[in-house]
Amino acid sequence: MSEELGLTVKKAEDFGKWYLEVIKKAEVVDTRYGVKGFQVFLPLATLIMKEIIKSFEDELEHKGHKPIMFPTVIPESSLKKEAEHIKGFSSEVFWITHAGKNKLEEKFCLRPTSETAFYPLYSIWIRSHLQLPLKLYQTGSMFRYETKMTKPLLRSREFIFIETHTAQKTFEDAEKQVKEDMEVFEKVTKEKLGISFILLKKPKWDKFPGAEDTYAFETIMPDGKILQLGTTHNLGEKFAKVFKIKYIDRDKEKKHVNQTCFGPGMSRITGAVIGIHGDDKGLILPPVIAPTQIVIVPIYTANTKAKVMEKCGEILGRIEAGGYRVHLDDREKYTPGFKFHEWELKGVPLRIEIGPIDIENRKITLVRRDFFERITIDEEKLEEFILETLDSIGFQLQKRANELMLIQDAKDYKNLKEKLKAGGFVRIPFCMRESCAKKLKNETTAEVRGTLFGKTEKLTKDKCAVCANKAKEMVYVAKAY
Amino acid sequence: MSEELGLTVKKAEDFGKWYLEVIKKAEVVDTRYGVKGFQVFLPLATLIMKEIIKSFEDELEHKGHKPIMFPTVIPESSLKKEAEHIKGFSSEVFWITHAGKNKLEEKFCLRPTSETAFYPLYSIWIRSHLQLPLKLYQTGSMFRYETKMTKPLLRSREFIFIETHTAQKTFEDAEKQVKEDMEVFEKVTKEKLGISFILLKKPKWDKFPGAEDTYAFETIMPDGKILQLGTTHNLGEKFAKVFKIKYIDRDKEKKHVNQTCFGPGMSRITGAVIGIHGDDKGLILPPVIAPTQIVIVPIYTANTKAKVMEKCGEILGRIEAGGYRVHLDDREKYTPGFKFHEWELKGVPLRIEIGPIDIENRKITLVRRDFFERITIDEEKLEEFILETLDSIGFQLQKRANELMLIQDAKDYKNLKEKLKAGGFVRIPFCMRESCAKKLKNETTAEVRGTLFGKTEKLTKDKCAVCANKAKEMVYVAKAY
Repeated sequence: MSEELGLTVKKAEDFGKWYLEVIKKAEVVDTRYGVKGFQVFLPLATLIMKEIIKSFEDELEHKGHKPIMFPTVIPESSLKKEAEHIKGFSSEVFWITHAGKNKLEEKFCLRPTSETAFYPLYSIWIRSHLQLPLKLYQTGSMFRYETKMTKPLLRSREFIFIETHTAQKTFEDAEKQVKEDMEVFEKVTKEKLGISFILLKKPKWDKFPGAEDTYAFETIMPDGKILQLGTTHNLGEKFAKVFKIKYIDRDKEKKHVNQTCFGPGMSRITGAVIGIHGDDKGLILPPVIAPTQIVIVPIYTANTKAKVMEKCGEILGRIEAGGYRVHLDDREKYTPGFKFHEWELKGVPLRIEIGPIDIENRKITLVRRDFFERITIDEEKLEEFILETLDSIGFQLQKRANELMLIQDAKDYKNLKEKLKAGGFVRIPFCMRESCAKKLKNETTAEVRGTLFGKTEKLTKDKCAVCANKAKEMVYVAKAY
Repeated sequence: MSEELGLTVKKAEDFGKWYLEVIKKAEVVDTRYGVKGFQVFLPLATLIMKEIIKSFEDELEHKGHKPIMFPTVIPESSLKKEAEHIKGFSSEVFWITHAGKNKLEEKFCLRPTSETAFYPLYSIWIRSHLQLPLKLYQTGSMFRYETKMTKPLLRSREFIFIETHTAQKTFEDAEKQVKEDMEVFEKVTKEKLGISFILLKKPKWDKFPGAEDTYAFETIMPDGKILQLGTTHNLGEKFAKVFKIKYIDRDKEKKHVNQTCFGPGMSRITGAVIGIHGDDKGLILPPVIAPTQIVIVPIYTANTKAKVMEKCGEILGRIEAGGYRVHLDDREKYTPGFKFHEWELKGVPLRIEIGPIDIENRKITLVRRDFFERITIDEEKLEEFILETLDSIGFQLQKRANELMLIQDAKDYKNLKEKLKAGGFVRIPFCMRESCAKKLKNETTAEVRGTLFGKTEKLTKDKCAVCANKAKEMVYVAKAY
């Protein structure tokens, strides 16, 4: 039976197949729901996502955001108000046209994103500079009629999202907000989940529909392709003008607010955690967000069962008292070997095995999920060891993930094409013309993903690596999901 | 400015108006969203609901349920499978017919409840008695095209719900599950939220569409009308037969599972907490779920400010260390009086006032939200006092709420009509015929809500109080929301 748990595909050999197999065997997502592109988040995905959501929500609340829940539906009249916005989303929205047997007077859509849900009320709520900044977030499902091939967690027609919507006085205040979003993203995604990323300012033809500036958090998956984990946008006054969101400033003048929105993708980040950290045995979950951080597996015969189970209960109590999420696997119908495989598959970072000999010797045996190191320690050192080891596993995952962040330089088109083969980002001098980016995409399937945020990078050559016209900025080129 | 915070309607004089005013002034829900019957849950509602959701989820997980997330949409073919079910919901569902400009091949609806989302996958997942019981829950939005007048939190077209879906071996196992649901509901709603209710078995004409037995948790609102807070259903084999959910039993025979589903209504329960516990000053939140349990308001002049703020910080630290949700209101632009009113309106159970004289005397002044009792204690007794007082407030709210649970007896039709005027439930001997319940409803607007669960009540008379035919059971009659 334990054979069934084994993965048949090696991650390094075929990442795409490995990903689908691990999602299935570890019971993360079920893709057999009857509506195309919609998936069931099984308990493991739900529990992981709940932890990731909590990490983001805590950080956001710490920065002064408050939670809110807007309706899941948006009336057509609101969605259509901002011209670029509706242009960007019109082909992607699901329309609700009927209720019972009645045709609705005005149809409404399932939110693809919620600017046009929030902002009509912002125009009612916001009156004075004393109310600014306004910082609200919501967590929930978004819906987009994706025409690209869907992939569990990474691209689906319903996905889980946190979105913040803020209003500030000035464009500069909005820029500061965008920087704060970056801090939040870094703190959770890099420090807690161990996922590396770079932050790119999107070229103007690839901005969020209705934004002044769009910044994207992008990581590299093990197959070398880029995955966008989230975005943050400086909306400037664009939506404020359309939705008439004004405040009376200290100088008594009525002014438009400046806005931002920030959207870390919860299901996508979950997919990145699985794809990036997993190995040929299954998932490896970062200890901070693992739904079960430690599993205890008893090993006994009929003669030793009572003694072993008693010790298991004692150890369980000690670990629980430390505030860890720990599970004692006392199922009778499975062997210890089966349990080992199952918990390895499901990514529990640390396993404790308790058997009669260790008990005699007042020892405990532990196995790390990251490199399967088996360690025997003195019983009294348990707490100290757990603390250090979980930290060390988190650190190890972060280190391994960081090694995936391949960024190469290319000087000319030929060199670029060559380097793209290795996956990851290739940095080139670029003319910043959309037509040139299109040519590149047509010829290589690679995209101009943006310029590095936060510093102006020196041109490595004064000619665009694609068209040989004058180069304006260094851009990051890659093939993306 | 503090005038604006005051309620203009007394709760005892016009509960309906009071409820709408408190919802608006305390910024609980905004009803000005552009789609009829849909509302925005403002930060206060969202925070309260998050606490209530967490209480339920913790209890459910403690009983062995695991979280899952199914899609928000259900394909027409699944929704239509169970005949009674679709009959019950067909007039209430919102239909998604288009995506972008394309007409969908199969239309799908926004889930009104998720039996028909879960059970097609249960038929794939469940194979063996070893997998039973299967206990899963999800938390999220449900959608019903309500034609009755909507009311914030109490009845709306999108509402927040927890739903459990279980599969057991036998009908008796399902009955046990239903009893466990009742324990969970009692533990959270009564013990933590201080809301009293009775548990009624619904008459057969008023069951959940597709259920064998339906039980409802019903409370009495301050206007004497009944509010259903949740339901739990024994579905028997009905859905299992339609969706072909079978397991191989220990005896090697293939059998249909027996199922249950349980749905405590999160937005409704939030509405009940607000309606039942509030008073003429605003909300009163049960300490266990109050997003802010204690607020600290500094009282100072220019001379004493530094000293007062220093003490506030010290007290804040002490209370935070105790694990309470505490907020220091250090806003400069409002007076202490304004702050008192605002936090009373928003229902914070306990207020601490810190001023220079108390500091001199090493005293602390606290005000309870339930009866505005002002108490001055020695500084070192703070922790002990908070613990006792929050408990006492919770107990007090529960006691007051229990006093609303008016259950009267009536022997005949005239007496019944008379007693219905006082609101609450009236208990009568009844013939158990649907036609007789319809007559009663037509003539009085009151409904036969069900029989008391868990004990067979002795008939107070052998004739039905409505039609004078032979009485079969004691039923609870009431006017409901």
